[in-house]
Amino acid sequence: MDDGADLVATLHTDRTDALDGLIGGSEETTTGVIRLRSLAEAGKLKYPIIAVNDADTKHFFDNRYGTGQSTLDGITRATNILWAGKTVVLAGYGWCGRGVALRARGMGAQTVVTEINPIRALEAAMDGHQVMSMDNAAKIGDIFITLTGGIKAVGRQHIEVMKDGAILANSGHFNVEIDIPALEELADGKQEVRPFVDEYLMGDGRRLNLLGEGRLINLAAAEGHPSAVMDMSFADQALSAEYLAQFAHSLKPQVYDVPRDIDEEVGRLKLLSMGITIDTLTAEQEEYLGSWEVGT
Amino acid sequence: MDDGADLVATLHTDRTDALDGLIGGSEETTTGVIRLRSLAEAGKLKYPIIAVNDADTKHFFDNRYGTGQSTLDGITRATNILWAGKTVVLAGYGWCGRGVALRARGMGAQTVVTEINPIRALEAAMDGHQVMSMDNAAKIGDIFITLTGGIKAVGRQHIEVMKDGAILANSGHFNVEIDIPALEELADGKQEVRPFVDEYLMGDGRRLNLLGEGRLINLAAAEGHPSAVMDMSFADQALSAEYLAQFAHSLKPQVYDVPRDIDEEVGRLKLLSMGITIDTLTAEQEEYLGSWEVGT
Amino acid sequence: MDDGADLVATLHTDRTDALDGLIGGSEETTTGVIRLRSLAEAGKLKYPIIAVNDADTKHFFDNRYGTGQSTLDGITRATNILWAGKTVVLAGYGWCGRGVALRARGMGAQTVVTEINPIRALEAAMDGHQVMSMDNAAKIGDIFITLTGGIKAVGRQHIEVMKDGAILANSGHFNVEIDIPALEELADGKQEVRPFVDEYLMGDGRRLNLLGEGRLINLAAAEGHPSAVMDMSFADQALSAEYLAQFAHSLKPQVYDVPRDIDEEVGRLKLLSMGITIDTLTAEQEEYLGSWEVGT
Amino acid sequence: MDDGADLVATLHTDRTDALDGLIGGSEETTTGVIRLRSLAEAGKLKYPIIAVNDADTKHFFDNRYGTGQSTLDGITRATNILWAGKTVVLAGYGWCGRGVALRARGMGAQTVVTEINPIRALEAAMDGHQVMSMDNAAKIGDIFITLTGGIKAVGRQHIEVMKDGAILANSGHFNVEIDIPALEELADGKQEVRPFVDEYLMGDGRRLNLLGEGRLINLAAAEGHPSAVMDMSFADQALSAEYLAQFAHSLKPQVYDVPRDIDEEVGRLKLLSMGITIDTLTAEQEEYLGSWEVGT
Repeated sequence: MDDGADLVATLHTDRTDALDGLIGGSEETTTGVIRLRSLAEAGKLKYPIIAVNDADTKHFFDNRYGTGQSTLDGITRATNILWAGKTVVLAGYGWCGRGVALRARGMGAQTVVTEINPIRALEAAMDGHQVMSMDNAAKIGDIFITLTGGIKAVGRQHIEVMKDGAILANSGHFNVEIDIPALEELADGKQEVRPFVDEYLMGDGRRLNLLGEGRLINLAAAEGHPSAVMDMSFADQALSAEYLAQFAHSLKPQVYDVPRDIDEEVGRLKLLSMGITIDTLTAEQEEYLGSWEVGT
Repeated sequence: MDDGADLVATLHTDRTDALDGLIGGSEETTTGVIRLRSLAEAGKLKYPIIAVNDADTKHFFDNRYGTGQSTLDGITRATNILWAGKTVVLAGYGWCGRGVALRARGMGAQTVVTEINPIRALEAAMDGHQVMSMDNAAKIGDIFITLTGGIKAVGRQHIEVMKDGAILANSGHFNVEIDIPALEELADGKQEVRPFVDEYLMGDGRRLNLLGEGRLINLAAAEGHPSAVMDMSFADQALSAEYLAQFAHSLKPQVYDVPRDIDEEVGRLKLLSMGITIDTLTAEQEEYLGSWEVGT
Repeated sequence: MDDGADLVATLHTDRTDALDGLIGGSEETTTGVIRLRSLAEAGKLKYPIIAVNDADTKHFFDNRYGTGQSTLDGITRATNILWAGKTVVLAGYGWCGRGVALRARGMGAQTVVTEINPIRALEAAMDGHQVMSMDNAAKIGDIFITLTGGIKAVGRQHIEVMKDGAILANSGHFNVEIDIPALEELADGKQEVRPFVDEYLMGDGRRLNLLGEGRLINLAAAEGHPSAVMDMSFADQALSAEYLAQFAHSLKPQVYDVPRDIDEEVGRLKLLSMGITIDTLTAEQEEYLGSWEVGT
Repeated sequence: MDDGADLVATLHTDRTDALDGLIGGSEETTTGVIRLRSLAEAGKLKYPIIAVNDADTKHFFDNRYGTGQSTLDGITRATNILWAGKTVVLAGYGWCGRGVALRARGMGAQTVVTEINPIRALEAAMDGHQVMSMDNAAKIGDIFITLTGGIKAVGRQHIEVMKDGAILANSGHFNVEIDIPALEELADGKQEVRPFVDEYLMGDGRRLNLLGEGRLINLAAAEGHPSAVMDMSFADQALSAEYLAQFAHSLKPQVYDVPRDIDEEVGRLKLLSMGITIDTLTAEQEEYLGSWEVGT
């Protein structure tokens, strides 16, 4: 079981010796799945891997509600800022980004979204967020949160124009989403003003606050996701492992989805634990939905 | 171009003579696509059809923001009710259902969702809606809106326990989502109390209000979707038609997705029309995302 | 019973003859109460008037939830615009303004508030709205809604810089909140493009859309407030009239609040009609709240 | 300067000797002001006190946005629960209660409000919250938060029917809002399962979790209010102290409002610090608002 495909990368480079006996794997994160697909497309993946991240019961919940809440939690614990009235710039409107956007607005912040995907950008706009380029957002944000899975979502040219007192946090993958080397270069010095808060004194007198050294802020400064969302992800992991134990021998070295019946079973169990009862289709309803003749 | 697969159903039954010369088609709705997939799975589909509904620039926007707004608009025009403080029961949490749920809450209503899919039910709960069976929801709702694409989402046993004065509206597909024959049977009579509002006097003295004869309420009582959301759907339709004109001869009679580049092009054009500028990946960022070696 | 203090103004100027026999009055709107207080402060008010508008069961509900919903309703019916993704500029963050702001956001719009009162401006910011001067808002708004109770909230200098296609609506008091004479002067002509929508062709080629001739848009293009909110206002009016019939002879010609017990009685009756049960203080709880000795 | 009127109570009972030389005071909280008014009404207040709590720049912000955020923060830190999908019962819909309700919903919770005031109960309902008696709410809540300023908002009969695993927190005034003696009596034992979380094992096998011993949870388990909201409260305190130093000798021993110009000045300074510019009335606008003749 991997988180970010780092174990997989190691197994495929420095530790190919450990591949022997490996029958399958699973991956927990969006970024990891992206890397695994690159690996598989390059024809170099050595064993079948289940993209647990892509299960509905994982990314709909963990990435959205989990990251949404825990990112704000991490920033609040690090800074004790008031969210109400702040301009929060979110780089990336994937599942994590929209979760954080939703919760930031839920705390009274004004939300600004930057994106590279036109459809996600449109969704963000119609969800009521301001959408603009990071070049423009950099000038108005009080708090910047990166959730792109890529690098330098906040780059040198953005750091140069940020307001005095701006706060920079990452909740994406690695500490590469904010260009920390550029920040270090542009600064005359830094001091830890609270735990997890490094205040950089810029050459032009501005102060910029980097949280948790640019590492995942919900893990750095808070407790990560609540158990009530990890339970679903881990159920997907456990049931996927069981599935691999049974069927991996017949699978090619590709990236696979979590089987649909596992995904729905996890959903059913979670509802049960929450005391929620839902409807089931009657035979008549099922027949109607399966039919193409019936209509108007 | 079809809406609900009714034209397709006719072409495959009563008017097979008209199939000649048909090279391809497209479908606008979720329900239509479900019917087409049944037809294709049965091996009976006679020409390739593009599921325009499934384009991101269609169902993310039309079904969610379009149906969300126009459903409330239709009900408001029909009834002039105050949404604030009302308990609104939404049958179905697909794209349409979540759009209506979002807007109903945005108008101050308390939202209750019923579902048959456990994962959607969980999403509804974590989006802050009450989730329960329709048997329970039927007793507490002030307004019922069906968005299931199926039949009898509101059935006889639900009609029997609704509160006096309850309002029933459909914004799904046909006038079969509410069991109108059961309503008629259980009632002693009805009168039109406002345009589009039929008040049924039930045998036990309760009055239930059916809007627009159970037909799509946004079309019955309002103006359907705003042009600002139909423009994207129609752009998908037009570009899909152009695509079929070019390539239909090489396509088997199956249901196809809108080509991804058409979908993203429609998104880009819409952003342009809204005056929104977004970011593009730098070469360095693109390389990072495409790489499996780089990491931690 | 007056609405806007127009009847009162007439009675105190052109028709002083009709004052004879008048024992008291009541006023329905914020703007009317402001005018009445001016009149009373000038020592010219001739009979006692109850400021029904200021009853909690009136302005908390009618001005906020009523105006909030019906203003959007009026604009939607007039234009059939999609609210999602639009930038909506609200002039004034009184009870009406915050109601409209809440509902506009609830429909997916990005909200901008202008104010002259620093405390209301702060509240707007911490409620998550952008706050800025109208000079700046004028350049970015898609839809402008005036709710100030004053004049020229949208003035000539704002009209000059608005975007092509901008929509102007008033939901405050009179058709003086938007400077229509300036709009007429700056335009080369106008045409009615839909009922209640006058498109002005500006000298510089821009088109600006004025709704309902600048009159209250919820009355011009929709049905005004829902009955579920007017019932409380009218209950306050009726019980205030009864109160005046009994006690007006002992009241000086001033502006009076609705008696607190009338206000709370209206609230209790409304809850009853909604089927909502609330708690009552136990004797022990009441004693605690009334005591200054008990504490820590 | 007092917080909760405890100092005042001591000064008026055990330490009347210290009254000598006291020229005035100020009070920070809603509960304190209620106690002071009781004291003044009883004719026993010995010096003039400014109700800083009642300044708009205090209770609109501190009580609403401050308590709203910090209460959730305290409960999150104590429990690491996921708010999304939880049923949160709020006892009291004053400024604090509505702030917490807003933020709880903003985090994806389903909100239930209990009240004793009919008008506040109506507001809660029209703000989209479920409103019911605590007797009913007790059975369905996952998390209970008391914000009444009184005693036993959660009493023995409520504790008896709560669900297994329910969480109880207080964010009102003292540790008397939850009937802890009853909880202790009904329980067979308790254990600290996390810092600030006492799990009570009830006689019937249920487990109930009391946070922070029923003391203010935002102070017990988090850092209290953010400085960005306390700055306004403290500005009101400081300027009120200055005012008292100048004018206390001419004030009777009563409870006074913060002078309006102090309140607005604090608002102006806060806007300035946030970089927000607002409008000012033109002479023409001011004249219009002050006039009773102008109209229709």
